[in-house]
Formats: sequence, C-alpha cells, structure tokens
Amino acid sequence: MPRVSSDQLEARRRQILDGARACFARHGYEGATVRRLEQTTGMSRGAIFHYFRDKQALFLAIAEQDARMMAEVVAEQGLVQVMRELLSSPDSRPAGWTGTYLEMARKARTDPTFRESWQAYSAELTGATRARLERQAASGALRADVDLTVLTQYLELVLEGLVSHLAMGLPAGELGNVLDVVEQSVRRAGGSPADV
Amino acid sequence: MPRVSSDQLEARRRQILDGARACFARHGYEGATVRRLEQTTGMSRGAIFHYFRDKQALFLAIAEQDARMMAEVVAEQGLVQVMRELLSSPDSRPAGWTGTYLEMARKARTDPTFRESWQAYSAELTGATRARLERQAASGALRADVDLTVLTQYLELVLEGLVSHLAMGLPAGELGNVLDVVEQSVRRAGGSPADV
Repeated sequence: MPRVSSDQLEARRRQILDGARACFARHGYEGATVRRLEQTTGMSRGAIFHYFRDKQALFLAIAEQDARMMAEVVAEQGLVQVMRELLSSPDSRPAGWTGTYLEMARKARTDPTFRESWQAYSAELTGATRARLERQAASGALRADVDLTVLTQYLELVLEGLVSHLAMGLPAGELGNVLDVVEQSVRRAGGSPADV
Repeated sequence: MPRVSSDQLEARRRQILDGARACFARHGYEGATVRRLEQTTGMSRGAIFHYFRDKQALFLAIAEQDARMMAEVVAEQGLVQVMRELLSSPDSRPAGWTGTYLEMARKARTDPTFRESWQAYSAELTGATRARLERQAASGALRADVDLTVLTQYLELVLEGLVSHLAMGLPAGELGNVLDVVEQSVRRAGGSPADV
C-alpha cells in the first residue's frame, strides 16, 4: 500500500467535508445516512469514519470549518461585508453556511453537547468581529455611545437573521438597503463608511 | 350523540393546536408521529384529522396561528416590544414561536408549497409592522431618510435572528441593549422613544 502524504490526507478530509456538507444540506441530519454520505463524498464508510469518529463528529467538523472560514473573512473585510456577499451569492461560499445552518440550529436546540461545541466555534467568529470593531473604534469610525460588546452582538444577531432568511429560500427583497441601515447604525454619525 | 356547539368545536381545535405545537417543538416535524400527536393532544387520530386534513395542514395551522397572534401584538405594541417580550420570557407566548420556528424554517427550505403558505401568513405580520411604522412616521417619530419598506424588513430581519437565536437555546447576553440599538436606528435622531 503506497504511503499517503499529509497533503493527500488533508485533501481527502476536505473531500469528505465537502460531500458531507452537501448531503446534510439536502437530506438533513437524520436523513444523511451512511449510504448517502458514501455517495456524496465518493468515499467508503471505512474511509469516512477513519477521518471522523462518527456522524456527529463529521457534522461538528463542518460547523468548525464554517466558523473558521467566516472568521477569516470577517477579519479581512468585516461582518457587514460578509453579509453582503451572502446576499449576492447565497449558494456560493462563504454561503455554504446557509445550507446546513438550519440543521445545525435544530441540533443545537435539542442537543446541549452539540450546542456547547457550536458555541465554542462561534466564539471564533465573535472574536474576529470584535477585533475588527476594536480597530474601527480606535480609528474613530464607530459610534462611541454603545459598548463594543453590544455592537458585536448586534451584528451577529443580524447575521443570524440573514442566514436563517436565506436558508429558508426567502426572497432578498430590500435586504441590501437593510444592510446599509445596519452599517450606518454602528458608525459614528457623520463619519465616513466604516466597513464594519 | 350530543350536539357540539361551535364554542366546543373551537375549543377542541385549539386543544389540538396546543398539543401539536408542543409535539412538533419536542420531536420535530418528522418525529411528530400520529401516535405522539394523539398523546400530546389527548385526542384520537380520528378527531385530529377530522379538524385537520393531514399533518402538514396541522403544521400550517400552527404557523398561521403564530403569525396572526404576532400580528395582533405588533399592531398594539410594535415589533420591538414583541422582541423584548420574547427575550424576557422565551418559553411563554408569543414565544410559542421559538419552539417550532426551526422546524418550520427547515420545512420552508425543502418544501416550496409549505414556503409559499408560510410566506402568505408572514405577510400578515409584515402588514401589521408596516402599518404601525406608518403611524409612527405620520407622527414624526421615525427617521425620514430610509424607506418604510426597508425599515419594515430591517425589523423583521432582526426578529428572524432573535427567534433563531432563542430557539437554539443560546444565551441572551446583551440582546436587551442590542434591541435599544435597533429601536434607536429606526427613530428620528433626537426624537423621543418611538415604540416602533
């Protein structure tokens, strides 16, 4: 048996995550059977569960990957920009989020262990959002009358609403203009665009 | 067989809806079997499906009841006040919403017919929110630089985020202060509280 390089291992892990994501988005958590996971990942159950202990571990790894990717984009471009991109292309990355979001939310609702792990991953996104707001605040771009913790949670609440809205397949309507209102409401009055 | 008054019919219908709501919230849509629905409603399957054609019709009737109730509270007190109440007592009415919300969102995602009906019910809430904003605008309490359609959708987006957040059992954190930011961002600058 040929030795497998760490690049190949990483590529296989990614292949499983991508296929599993599509499977969970389409069939739901319960509906994503091992047989369907084999089909969408193109890997045998032996290979899949070599990389991930069980279905829940696989599902959590997707949540972790999503949170990390979102955190990276937020650090570079800000959470409002992430939301604008979600809105303009809800089916592309980083909008892979929308497909599995409702499944994850539902699992978080009924499974405290899953909820705890999910909250831990979400903390990365919160950290990135807050760090960016701190930089904006330091440059005087943000309103100063509201605590950064509140502004961070405000932006995250809007994100939750947006992802939920898009995940349901509801029309975007005026959401582009809504995001303008959101962006403006964290900015210093009369200030220049903050790219929060 | 004694005749049943229309009050009694209405009471039974309500009993079924209340029991079914708890059942869907606890077991999910697929998990809410006819047997479980019988247990939580205290009615036979014959009685349940005398009032509602099938499980989907029952689920939709709950969505309709939720939307109507929210619309009534919004007309009286405004959407931000509804959100404050959701936050202070997420397990009580009108927060019955949070229990079944993720199930409905998930069904809307995968079932276009369900999504269409749900959107029709949501239109009642949108109408009530908009009507209230129009009254506030007429009295000069709202900002005038953003279209009412945008402000309506803004408030609804925050509601979607809040219901989703609470439905997952995530901590409220600073959400009370977040709602202050939301309320302030639809008000006329320097104006008095608008109770939007």
